[in-house]
Amino acid sequence: MTTQRARRPGPSVRTRVVEHTDASEVAREDRLITEEPLEIRVRSLGLEPRRAWVTMRTPGHDFELAAGWLVNEGLASPSSISQVAYCTDDDLAPEQEFNVVTVDVDGATALPHRHESASSGSSACGVCGKDSVVEALATRTTRPWAGLRPDASVVRRLPEALRERQTLFARTGGVHAAGLADELGTLFVVREDVGRHNAVDKVVGARVLAGDPAASACLVLSGRVGFELVQKAAAAGIGSIVAVGAPTSLAAHLAAEGDIDLWGFTSAGRTVRY
Amino acid sequence: MTTQRARRPGPSVRTRVVEHTDASEVAREDRLITEEPLEIRVRSLGLEPRRAWVTMRTPGHDFELAAGWLVNEGLASPSSISQVAYCTDDDLAPEQEFNVVTVDVDGATALPHRHESASSGSSACGVCGKDSVVEALATRTTRPWAGLRPDASVVRRLPEALRERQTLFARTGGVHAAGLADELGTLFVVREDVGRHNAVDKVVGARVLAGDPAASACLVLSGRVGFELVQKAAAAGIGSIVAVGAPTSLAAHLAAEGDIDLWGFTSAGRTVRY
Repeated sequence: MTTQRARRPGPSVRTRVVEHTDASEVAREDRLITEEPLEIRVRSLGLEPRRAWVTMRTPGHDFELAAGWLVNEGLASPSSISQVAYCTDDDLAPEQEFNVVTVDVDGATALPHRHESASSGSSACGVCGKDSVVEALATRTTRPWAGLRPDASVVRRLPEALRERQTLFARTGGVHAAGLADELGTLFVVREDVGRHNAVDKVVGARVLAGDPAASACLVLSGRVGFELVQKAAAAGIGSIVAVGAPTSLAAHLAAEGDIDLWGFTSAGRTVRY
Repeated sequence: MTTQRARRPGPSVRTRVVEHTDASEVAREDRLITEEPLEIRVRSLGLEPRRAWVTMRTPGHDFELAAGWLVNEGLASPSSISQVAYCTDDDLAPEQEFNVVTVDVDGATALPHRHESASSGSSACGVCGKDSVVEALATRTTRPWAGLRPDASVVRRLPEALRERQTLFARTGGVHAAGLADELGTLFVVREDVGRHNAVDKVVGARVLAGDPAASACLVLSGRVGFELVQKAAAAGIGSIVAVGAPTSLAAHLAAEGDIDLWGFTSAGRTVRY
């Protein structure tokens, strides 16, 4: 046990680099995006907290990340999350103080399928084929977004609006962003993280902790769209996904199944509707 | 049980899209990168195969992915992998036939720390602080690369050499690539995958299954560099990492600890040494 206090990690760190071009080698200062582990623990039914997940993330908005992750993975409803706090266990080393959060959840939670540990190869609970993935989605989807959704002209403005608020990206060049917008293209929350999935958990968590509905007309992404991001959007009740990058085959399939509009390769000049 | 045969999934699929610009809406055909789950099972010591991992990947080079993943995670030495095969269990649905591989390993294997299931929050085996992450790396690192490494002028040529061989990227725009190169910049293996980490596992697995050393002068990456990719490079015995994108704070820290040269923001015009 120690009384030493941890220094809270910042979202970026200074470093010395050497930039090489054809003509020169210049030593200068640079900024790196911070990557640190975050352990999410869940306490429910009066039991001891259980470790639910460890993710590599950019420090900042950690409570939102934890709350959003639980909602987006279908492990907790927004209204069931009663408290999020940094862990103060005596067994934690001081350096870990800001790398562990505990979420209090009213009622029971179940760890999902894909967080199970390795088990017998003969288990029926094996790899998800496409059909079972879609089935799993169906059970996790909240009601599809019933409100208005942005049209193509609004969609094309969203990546630039997102970029204007990517302050960490401007500083480090090494971080993804996600934002939530209404059908008119107004971005009401933007978060950045070294992990694309974490950024999505953070924006949804920001809404949940503010007591706002997780459901939104539109999720804006700085990168590509894989199937896990569509799963998260479906669980949160999002109507459209607008991405700067490409969707995958399974992302397009799940978006169609879940009644989510999917836009990729989006810029001011064009967007592609899948 | 059924006698129906699975159709082997290809690395990309055709789809119909609508491209929207300011002036037009044009329906056309597009290609999406395929994303499907792969379950890796490990059989050792005469026991039943155990599920070790499930990853979302682009089909193709699945045996390399499985072998490289085991080596890069420090779970098996290259020489201990005796066979990799698609699973033919009767309990598998036909659609899953090409989504499950079994790796035969001589000797014992242990599932690593981060693949453990959720457990008590009071367990000592909690979140990794930076120090314990570095310790974990130290135990997994094979000997650092003792041969020559590319200099800055060679490094700057590597992203373009990689791009020339990114055939799936050219078709879909939605896929990462990794390559292994010697100190003169000759790329001797390139693989593409929807997951950045999978692409690295595939190139190392390609070497392992060919009976070549996993250790190489240089790993070339189409994207960013997080700590997990540096861990993989250290386990494989790689001397330099050359990335088109940015490294994270922890990636730079681990590369320095593991005696790996780290180059980011690399293009023909410049590169940055961390």
